Amino acid sequence: MNPGISRRSLGVPASPIRGLIPFAERALKAGKKVHFLNIGQPDVPTPEGYFEAVRSFREPVLAYGGSHGNPMLVQSLQRVYREELGVALAPENILVTAGGSEALWFTVMVLCDPGDELIVPEPFYANYAAICAGAGVRIVPVTTRTEDGYHLPVSDPARAVESKITPRTRGILLSHPGNPTGTVFTRQEVKLLGSIASRFGLFLVADEVYRDFTYDGRPFTSFASLEEAKEHVVVIDSVSKRYSACGARIGFIVSRSEAVMEQAMKFAQSRGCTPTLEQIGAAALYDTPSSFLEGVRREYQVRRDTLCHALETIPGVTLRKPEGAFYLSARIPVEDAHAFAVWMMEEFDLDGETVLFAPLEGFYATPGLGRNEIRLCYALEKAKLERAAQIIRAGLQEYGNRKGGLA
Amino acid sequence: MNPGISRRSLGVPASPIRGLIPFAERALKAGKKVHFLNIGQPDVPTPEGYFEAVRSFREPVLAYGGSHGNPMLVQSLQRVYREELGVALAPENILVTAGGSEALWFTVMVLCDPGDELIVPEPFYANYAAICAGAGVRIVPVTTRTEDGYHLPVSDPARAVESKITPRTRGILLSHPGNPTGTVFTRQEVKLLGSIASRFGLFLVADEVYRDFTYDGRPFTSFASLEEAKEHVVVIDSVSKRYSACGARIGFIVSRSEAVMEQAMKFAQSRGCTPTLEQIGAAALYDTPSSFLEGVRREYQVRRDTLCHALETIPGVTLRKPEGAFYLSARIPVEDAHAFAVWMMEEFDLDGETVLFAPLEGFYATPGLGRNEIRLCYALEKAKLERAAQIIRAGLQEYGNRKGGLA
Repeated sequence: MNPGISRRSLGVPASPIRGLIPFAERALKAGKKVHFLNIGQPDVPTPEGYFEAVRSFREPVLAYGGSHGNPMLVQSLQRVYREELGVALAPENILVTAGGSEALWFTVMVLCDPGDELIVPEPFYANYAAICAGAGVRIVPVTTRTEDGYHLPVSDPARAVESKITPRTRGILLSHPGNPTGTVFTRQEVKLLGSIASRFGLFLVADEVYRDFTYDGRPFTSFASLEEAKEHVVVIDSVSKRYSACGARIGFIVSRSEAVMEQAMKFAQSRGCTPTLEQIGAAALYDTPSSFLEGVRREYQVRRDTLCHALETIPGVTLRKPEGAFYLSARIPVEDAHAFAVWMMEEFDLDGETVLFAPLEGFYATPGLGRNEIRLCYALEKAKLERAAQIIRAGLQEYGNRKGGLA
Repeated sequence: MNPGISRRSLGVPASPIRGLIPFAERALKAGKKVHFLNIGQPDVPTPEGYFEAVRSFREPVLAYGGSHGNPMLVQSLQRVYREELGVALAPENILVTAGGSEALWFTVMVLCDPGDELIVPEPFYANYAAICAGAGVRIVPVTTRTEDGYHLPVSDPARAVESKITPRTRGILLSHPGNPTGTVFTRQEVKLLGSIASRFGLFLVADEVYRDFTYDGRPFTSFASLEEAKEHVVVIDSVSKRYSACGARIGFIVSRSEAVMEQAMKFAQSRGCTPTLEQIGAAALYDTPSSFLEGVRREYQVRRDTLCHALETIPGVTLRKPEGAFYLSARIPVEDAHAFAVWMMEEFDLDGETVLFAPLEGFYATPGLGRNEIRLCYALEKAKLERAAQIIRAGLQEYGNRKGGLA
């Protein structure tokens, strides 16, 4: 008699970001060059300080660390919050995690029981769907629209959120700047969400791992700075995007809720600790001169403009220039972006090259939305982005012809 | 209105292994020297190959890896299973995880829905309780006894397990060699459990991270080698104990169940990947000459004998010499080992030194069991163990006198 697996895991969706990798691997084996715009992997070199710190480790035993995290790394983060965001944190307000992902896992587990709900503006980072499904938590979406720049519905933003609150609602979860939209909430929106959280007794989980990348001089208001709702806010942070160090897998839960941190610590103990060397490297990253971040921000803005410009002129493509992060969401002239992505891997190439992107359907909770949309990462060199746009243009044209005209 | 946290997380017990660390930190601050026998942290130097491999990394970007794991590391593990256990694995049978802990988390989530049950011989590794509570899974214990060397109840081992099976039972979870008992199941016990799993359609989750440490020439039968139940077996593996590399946080799920591996992969995608450098280091560890493991095994056997010998002569202490791993469980002459542990940190020292150990109550699911038992780790130098035993002896004597006689 063969044992069955859990309904919980059957309910976890495959990643729309990583799920197409096997198709890309087959395309690579077939000799194609694949441009990977599906995943948020910058090509910016990781600051050398990371590697120097790791190389200088000279203890004879690679031992466990504390569950709470390396104290030097925690201190670095305290300094960043103080200097960059004006937020005073105690060491107990910070927990080092295995990337922002583990921080999200722990937070969802700490806040929600199976059957509870989180309100999430959609489109949202697709892994929220996987984590919530694994934890038995229902995502209740607030749909945002290209036309509004993916901000909260402008007509009545408070009502758009409050109308979704039920007795099972435990909090509001969002990425800020938005992944996949790049949307940077205004100070007014941040304060509005804080006030809703306070009034209705909800948590506000703000995934701010792209905080350093806002463009056109747009100011960033961290949810961590909401003094009036500080017991309600949980910020997810990470070195991955800030320092182009995705492979370090170092993230953080930052919260001034004592209850949240106390409970999160038990989950942290259940996995021992995060890696010793990676934490040493990450602590060194926070000593990188601020000119690094300024340079990267300027560079990403150029890259954003490059990709937007190249895509905007493709017939049938609509998009809104993102305000931050390094993704853009675009509507494309196909019926099913997933089928188009598979076709791009299996049947198409432009002089031996093709592009992998993330279909956007898995970034929505509302059935049917996002089927003709895609997410592209623009954290790659300008020339690569221009080439990728060329390939997408050619792919869309051939796909449209093949199918007998654009959808 | 302050938001509340989940019942799920309130139900997660604090770690009996790490929960007393704050007391130890205060003892350290007060100027005491603390011997940490609470945690499985060997003082054996990590093989240099790990650090050499990490230092030789020369890519400019510390990028994400695949969710499945570094292919070289996966190949290393395939070789180990083939050469050491005679088990042929495909790459798809192996998933690299953030330590054995993440492997356990994913496995419990993949196998069980909230309300499901796992049968677990007790005393068991305390983190099983935390992980199962987090996942909403009930641990149904099969109590094992010092007198039986913590083997399955000798009178009728099959009945001891089968009588615990209910419609909600999804599997049997155990550590092998046992943590905290050191018990190494006989070939007959392994086959019996395999046959129960097959007959009742259950999974068999075998945490074999201490596999390399069995003593007195005792043979080890891996659950991975059960060809007749191969679809039922999930093995948890890790570099932590084998190579004294606990801080690497590199572990594995190993299973020939296609369904398990397919579902586990979705959880793996939800957290991106395990750290890039740590995987490179771990792959190099598996090239360590086998003389390293032989030497460590001999050394741990000496350490075990040292600690057992030193403890056995303490009045009121009873223990059974462990067959493997590097822990021993002992009954001590106190009513409440947790209170004694706190007292050892706060009120006692022998010439400025004290010992931290893990109270065993949190390693049992049956209420009341283990209150007068402790777990000690003997992966430390002989002289340290002898000193620790001296301190425990003196502590027990003073504690007994203080309380007006032994319990």
